[in-house]
Amino acid sequence: MDAPVLVAAVTLLSALQMVYLARRVGWSRMAHKILPPAVTGPPEFERTFRAHQNCVEFYMLFLVCMWSCGVFFSEPIAATGGLVYMIARLFYFNGYVKSTKKRLPGFWVSVAVVFFLSLLGLIGIVQQILHKYFYIYR
Amino acid sequence: MDAPVLVAAVTLLSALQMVYLARRVGWSRMAHKILPPAVTGPPEFERTFRAHQNCVEFYMLFLVCMWSCGVFFSEPIAATGGLVYMIARLFYFNGYVKSTKKRLPGFWVSVAVVFFLSLLGLIGIVQQILHKYFYIYR
Amino acid sequence: MDAPVLVAAVTLLSALQMVYLARRVGWSRMAHKILPPAVTGPPEFERTFRAHQNCVEFYMLFLVCMWSCGVFFSEPIAATGGLVYMIARLFYFNGYVKSTKKRLPGFWVSVAVVFFLSLLGLIGIVQQILHKYFYIYR
Repeated sequence: MDAPVLVAAVTLLSALQMVYLARRVGWSRMAHKILPPAVTGPPEFERTFRAHQNCVEFYMLFLVCMWSCGVFFSEPIAATGGLVYMIARLFYFNGYVKSTKKRLPGFWVSVAVVFFLSLLGLIGIVQQILHKYFYIYR
Repeated sequence: MDAPVLVAAVTLLSALQMVYLARRVGWSRMAHKILPPAVTGPPEFERTFRAHQNCVEFYMLFLVCMWSCGVFFSEPIAATGGLVYMIARLFYFNGYVKSTKKRLPGFWVSVAVVFFLSLLGLIGIVQQILHKYFYIYR
Repeated sequence: MDAPVLVAAVTLLSALQMVYLARRVGWSRMAHKILPPAVTGPPEFERTFRAHQNCVEFYMLFLVCMWSCGVFFSEPIAATGGLVYMIARLFYFNGYVKSTKKRLPGFWVSVAVVFFLSLLGLIGIVQQILHKYFYIYR
């Protein structure tokens, strides 16, 4: 197996994006003078904090689905889906900071991408299991 | 190295289970009318929220241990352990929603699986390091 | 591609460290008699809880950067960086438990390691993309 370098590139970029979003929470702490370990404060800070938490929760699921698609189905589709996910998450984060409702468009696009990638990954994995363990040739 | 497709299959299934558990928190929000970004409310909602958080915290550790076992020790054992972990986590989640105490059986089974997988992974990794860097043949 | 066993070894050790840090939160719960699902209490408990949360948030980013460096740049550098990260995170955790300010040295060292690993990983990935898709030989 050759290392899927495009998927690895998007993975590394997405990790740097997550560092950036973590910094956004830090900047929001400074702007609202909320010292750690406090996680409550004005609504805008709490929305920023929750936006980041949600991105963290989804990050692993995103990586699993992108890699499943990239290794077992198609690397370019997986990498493209990953970039779309990253853009959707940025819209989600910026929207959520403004208001709870404005988080929704980015959220649903990012969820749709994850489902799309997981579906393709599932197809690829089932094909390979049929091939490897049941000798069904593609 | 051939891609360990059984472990990949369990990984993708576990990611979909995590999406399902995230939805359960969303449904609990609706049932108790807790709008984001709030994370406090009636005890049942708070237990549901914490159950999901704990699953997120353990998810990465689970994946690392399952893949260590699957790549360096035995793929079928790793995949089977992964399925047992997923079932234990479902019991944990459903138990925690009912009461704090009912989370414990599922929790301890899931921790035991993680330790079991990490132990086998450690054995496989040490063997391979001895083989690769100290020329000790198995 | 041969499985990078040194990076896998550090990954498994770091997962066990995360289990240990999760236990530290559990012990702090017992010492301060904070029953789950509560996450608020005396300042020391709240700092311990947040210290663990921050380690969880950074854990994925750390793994992504260490593996990018290990697969596409240099395995020994990646594994060494991983060990330094683990030590820095232990200092961060122990410092944060004592006071909010004492978390900072360990935190900045761990962030520096992540950036260092991500930079080397990025160099390796760009080289491989140039090689694979643009036929530029190293």
